[in-house]
Amino acid sequence: MNENLINDLSRNNMISIGIIGLGYIGSGVLKLIESQKEYIKKKTGKLISIKRVVDKDIIEKAAMFEPLFGDEIIFSSNADDIINDPAIDIVVELVGGIDPAYTYVINSLKNGKYVVTANKDMIANKGESLFSAAAGNDVDILFEASVGGGIPIIGPMKSSLAANNISKIIGILNGTTNYILTRMQKEGLNFENALSVAQELGYAEKVNPSADIEGNDAACKLAILSSIAFNSRVVFGEVYKEGIKKITLEDIRHANDLGYVIKLLAIGSDEGGSICVRVHPALIPKDHILASINYANNAVYLYGNFVGEVMSYGQGAGDRPTASSVVGDIIQIARNFDRQHKKPIFGCTCFANKPIKPIDEMENKFYALMEVKDRPGVLAKIAAVFGGNNVSIESMIQKQTQEGGSAKIVFITHRVLNKDMFKSVKEIIKLDVVNQVLNIIRVEDLQ
Amino acid sequence: MNENLINDLSRNNMISIGIIGLGYIGSGVLKLIESQKEYIKKKTGKLISIKRVVDKDIIEKAAMFEPLFGDEIIFSSNADDIINDPAIDIVVELVGGIDPAYTYVINSLKNGKYVVTANKDMIANKGESLFSAAAGNDVDILFEASVGGGIPIIGPMKSSLAANNISKIIGILNGTTNYILTRMQKEGLNFENALSVAQELGYAEKVNPSADIEGNDAACKLAILSSIAFNSRVVFGEVYKEGIKKITLEDIRHANDLGYVIKLLAIGSDEGGSICVRVHPALIPKDHILASINYANNAVYLYGNFVGEVMSYGQGAGDRPTASSVVGDIIQIARNFDRQHKKPIFGCTCFANKPIKPIDEMENKFYALMEVKDRPGVLAKIAAVFGGNNVSIESMIQKQTQEGGSAKIVFITHRVLNKDMFKSVKEIIKLDVVNQVLNIIRVEDLQ
Repeated sequence: MNENLINDLSRNNMISIGIIGLGYIGSGVLKLIESQKEYIKKKTGKLISIKRVVDKDIIEKAAMFEPLFGDEIIFSSNADDIINDPAIDIVVELVGGIDPAYTYVINSLKNGKYVVTANKDMIANKGESLFSAAAGNDVDILFEASVGGGIPIIGPMKSSLAANNISKIIGILNGTTNYILTRMQKEGLNFENALSVAQELGYAEKVNPSADIEGNDAACKLAILSSIAFNSRVVFGEVYKEGIKKITLEDIRHANDLGYVIKLLAIGSDEGGSICVRVHPALIPKDHILASINYANNAVYLYGNFVGEVMSYGQGAGDRPTASSVVGDIIQIARNFDRQHKKPIFGCTCFANKPIKPIDEMENKFYALMEVKDRPGVLAKIAAVFGGNNVSIESMIQKQTQEGGSAKIVFITHRVLNKDMFKSVKEIIKLDVVNQVLNIIRVEDLQ
Repeated sequence: MNENLINDLSRNNMISIGIIGLGYIGSGVLKLIESQKEYIKKKTGKLISIKRVVDKDIIEKAAMFEPLFGDEIIFSSNADDIINDPAIDIVVELVGGIDPAYTYVINSLKNGKYVVTANKDMIANKGESLFSAAAGNDVDILFEASVGGGIPIIGPMKSSLAANNISKIIGILNGTTNYILTRMQKEGLNFENALSVAQELGYAEKVNPSADIEGNDAACKLAILSSIAFNSRVVFGEVYKEGIKKITLEDIRHANDLGYVIKLLAIGSDEGGSICVRVHPALIPKDHILASINYANNAVYLYGNFVGEVMSYGQGAGDRPTASSVVGDIIQIARNFDRQHKKPIFGCTCFANKPIKPIDEMENKFYALMEVKDRPGVLAKIAAVFGGNNVSIESMIQKQTQEGGSAKIVFITHRVLNKDMFKSVKEIIKLDVVNQVLNIIRVEDLQ
């Protein structure tokens, strides 16, 4: 072996990392790599070393980290210091949000660098152009950490499960809302109190918790998983969304009486070549394993035509689990690293172009809670509206009679078109025997 | 680009497979590859084609398969037809058992072929020499299908989770025993009846179900997972084993009263640099997610120092789930395939050499069910024996008094050394106030 080749082999075993963004996750990645560097080297033969760290507020942050790492790492405040450094092999983007993260990543790819990111917004909105830039430069962008924190799901879908046609994914993808619903379910807290507790514990953002509560976070993650599962690009804006604000303790109690719990689900399915993607609260059977995913945990359940049903479960957020996934991606790149012959790790797998089905055309089973006048003939009038709109009823329970001559009724429908249900509800609200329609929630029997 | 290079690139995108063993799993793999070939090509750019299939009873089997595949596949009965065919890139070993599978695999590796296998016995007994032969020939042996059927677990441990030190794995790794225990738990069948049902449904072998019932199957799988988790080779014979034959409905009822269910667990842990590996029935808390893994399903739960707790769940057996994992491994190899520059995919990660702790030295909490004389002073005598052997009692419940003046007592101990518990039981059996010690089962609080 000549000396150049030996040097080259040796250099392929030393991978230089640049981290852009030294916030909560970035600090976690920095600490993980520094503490596990020797372990990873023994395991993989690859030395992963952080060469540069960039953050816009680097002066104060570097003061925290520089004493720990001496002169090994160059701290600075300009992302171009990493993007344009020919010695950096992998850029780890942990800024979050679409801009300027997208610019950093595109420029890194164009400079022939591999990219690892935890940025769900960027992948769910700009995935197509990112993967195209990666392929055009014979590199790749890996993003295991963008969905489900430390839970391995994107890697397994791209390799161990890759032989399967996946027909359906059901995710509990947002820890904040799952935490709130679990506290409501188990301890009878109402939504506002459960949200306050989640905010105090740092599970929900204090100033504006809406990205979680309204389902935007879960919708980004579902767009990412669905693109991989169905081999066709799904973007954030295509996901139908309902949040959990409207869920009351009363709904949870009625669901419980019927054998269900309420979870915020992110569901993607391929229905005859059309993709259905939706995030909404749903009643699921108490004895399904997804019903036991509680507090801030996440899970992804999927159906493959050979593997059958599989589920991955774990902590869906936090600096350490997320860092685990980021560094898992770095190791995946490092194992295959060849500076002279770069190539994609997985590449984009969206070879199809499937239409997205609008919510109106999707079919669901529904729970409907109404407050009605407590007198004969009420059910006949409501049933007539449902019947006239092709909505057939699976079961109906009249709950306690209220003061003032009103009563509560819970309906469970069969599977019906969403538009037929929406139309029924609009008409039912106008009936003189109906005081109010308190809630409409989808039911997923998961069979 | 010159023509040779173009041809070479094109040949690296065509991967030729030879399958040895056309039984239940082999047929599943054959069918999967044939039905998903185009899909996999679109997804990965790689054409995976089966060139040869070998089985000792090939004449009758080929009659079934040849009409389906025309002349594309060469069927024969001699494994060397595959091992020595220079056109075969990946050998898929699905013979099972140690001999002659081991010889086929070693010879394939020596001939520079990648190997994919579902053979837990071979990996758990002969792993070290297999990985060494793979490394020595710049290829690799992948074995996702050897543990947990279609559940992705080995791949994720080798990549997404690779940055973690794993301190503990808890597996429900044998579908047969989990099916039997679930039927006992949920429907009150006794062990013999539940076993018969499992045999009728094909979950347990009819002639000799002992490999499942006595924990050998789970012990092989635990040896494989522990070697990866703790970076140190664990072989089948090093795993402590107790089966489920001794579990009675009475144990299940007492466990239920105490808030537990009984599962056959495979537990591996790194305790201060020593490896503890054991397969035995255990009481686990009803509200832990592992308690909801029912029927023939499998799950692997693990603790990593960054990721925290994660779990994978799915069907642990069957031709289609197992084929999913086998082909997942083939895809993993195909993605990185370069006929001119072969190299390991993951390589062996057992860089450490940790001692195995003997069962006597491990600590556990125990459930003990005894039948005793129903008279004063009994508890004092038993407690004196426990106390004299350093076994402290967490709780004690006297169950119903029996006819003939006897009573049942359930003890739950604190965490104690196994040898101290074993010694206590030997002495307690000899007490005149004790009719019999009905069962001793470990308790895992999983906290």
